[in-house]
Amino acid sequence: MSAENLAIGIDIGGTKIAGGIVDGNGQILRRSFRPTPGQNAALTEDAIAAVVNELSDGNQQLPVGIGAAGWINRSGSHVLFSPHLAWRDEPVLERLEAKMNRKITLNNDADAAGWAEHRFGAARGEELSVCLTLGTGIGGAIIFDNRILRGSFGVAGEFGHQTLVVEGHRCPCGNRGCWEQYVSGNALGREAAELVRLNSPRAHNLREACSADPALVTGAMVTSLAANGDLACMELIEEMGHWLGLGISNLAAVLDPGVVVIGGGLGSASTSLIATAEATYRKLLPGRGYRPYARIVRAQLGADAGLIGAADLARHDR
Amino acid sequence: MSAENLAIGIDIGGTKIAGGIVDGNGQILRRSFRPTPGQNAALTEDAIAAVVNELSDGNQQLPVGIGAAGWINRSGSHVLFSPHLAWRDEPVLERLEAKMNRKITLNNDADAAGWAEHRFGAARGEELSVCLTLGTGIGGAIIFDNRILRGSFGVAGEFGHQTLVVEGHRCPCGNRGCWEQYVSGNALGREAAELVRLNSPRAHNLREACSADPALVTGAMVTSLAANGDLACMELIEEMGHWLGLGISNLAAVLDPGVVVIGGGLGSASTSLIATAEATYRKLLPGRGYRPYARIVRAQLGADAGLIGAADLARHDR
Repeated sequence: MSAENLAIGIDIGGTKIAGGIVDGNGQILRRSFRPTPGQNAALTEDAIAAVVNELSDGNQQLPVGIGAAGWINRSGSHVLFSPHLAWRDEPVLERLEAKMNRKITLNNDADAAGWAEHRFGAARGEELSVCLTLGTGIGGAIIFDNRILRGSFGVAGEFGHQTLVVEGHRCPCGNRGCWEQYVSGNALGREAAELVRLNSPRAHNLREACSADPALVTGAMVTSLAANGDLACMELIEEMGHWLGLGISNLAAVLDPGVVVIGGGLGSASTSLIATAEATYRKLLPGRGYRPYARIVRAQLGADAGLIGAADLARHDR
Repeated sequence: MSAENLAIGIDIGGTKIAGGIVDGNGQILRRSFRPTPGQNAALTEDAIAAVVNELSDGNQQLPVGIGAAGWINRSGSHVLFSPHLAWRDEPVLERLEAKMNRKITLNNDADAAGWAEHRFGAARGEELSVCLTLGTGIGGAIIFDNRILRGSFGVAGEFGHQTLVVEGHRCPCGNRGCWEQYVSGNALGREAAELVRLNSPRAHNLREACSADPALVTGAMVTSLAANGDLACMELIEEMGHWLGLGISNLAAVLDPGVVVIGGGLGSASTSLIATAEATYRKLLPGRGYRPYARIVRAQLGADAGLIGAADLARHDR
């Protein structure tokens, strides 16, 4: 692999800034990490620069791509909004480029992850693919004709905030019934906490795991108990699988993708989640019987997808 | 306008086959019509050929584009399914080309209409636009980067069959709660018939219009009474506007279009429908305040959009 094909990829999450040098086949050759400095924009930008400088080791020619957990405007210059990071309609690209004195490419983290699956993972060879990153919420990416479909203002792929249940659970976005209130680590934790609160006889393992304090229940607790055969937690995951399948069927009505790739921490924590989602999707797809089904598959690149995709986008896109 | 820019466009609906010679500016120079011969595929194809032959008047060089109210496969060769026409997974293109001994381009009618609005109408200049054709159901088109986004199997844009209400009204598609069960001429007629059936004191004009027989209520009856100031019918249209705005907000979460164009018989019958939809959309758009709003506008080409788009696609696409 020649040095011209190398690029630096940075994935900025709510807790961690992960960086790596990535080659043209999507392999990570070196890594670097920093904690994300909470809700402070200047410190976050300093930490990004530190990771980039450590990885580039004096080589200013390496392209740098960033994937950030926020809404990026159409031209890739501004972070419009980020639920977990400090930026609010700020010219992040310009500031970072000035700070590091090099060209940078900025993308949404779920878009970067979807791009990585398109180039090197589970969506290879598809003209139109949808990638869901299931974590605390739902991240989304649409890849069409070898491009990220970003929308007119840069904010396409926000699948998690489709209203799926009229007058349903309240969402921090301000609406009710958003898909991610039914499919996410947060939703799983909320439902499990409710079982503990109601003193459900089926939730004895859950109650033990959280020391009978509903506030201590997490989604990860549920997936882990379910993997160990706890029936209440397995039911919660099955319920979530139905909601996942219903939302995928809605996406298929709009986009008709060839493949739906499911990644993220929650997506990879449970095989039964995807199996249930696929069964529901096959029962609900509009026009079933008169059209092919999209494949519903697990992501292949795991937690590195965002970093790999960000690096590749620095070479290919924008 | 030179003769090379002319093309024949054919719009096949459930009741009528409309054809025209269309120039490169989207103007219709000549027209021809035939009734659609119900659920008989061979007779439908004969009628199409008759319209094309009448319009071409011996000129076999004119490109021919067809927009049909059905699901067309990705390559444009087969009609997979049509709710109102006779075709079921049939090689319609091959048969029509053999019958007329000329090359033909086949598209979904809502895609053709959306394409026409993109090229000559309300969506000009937008990189990403969504077009809704509101009639007995909801037809949809997505135009991105000067192409129709057809999906991996040709069936993208079936917005009307997104589940909007879990366990909602049954839809002929087999599911419940589809968007078009809340936004369509059929939905409007169903709700108005219910008011008549319940002997609602607000529905006296409706009852008079249908001679007190709920089975005779139509959506067109409601839009016409509403236009004349009937309060019950105006309320029904306002309710429908809310559902329309909610669905548009969901589409914006997925696609982030620059413009949403609303056409079709129902779409053009009521200005208050679109105004209410826009108000609801602005209240529900995920991330409102941190992103621009798409424009919500009426279609500009009226009932000719499908025909004009089909002709233009014969010159440009596939």
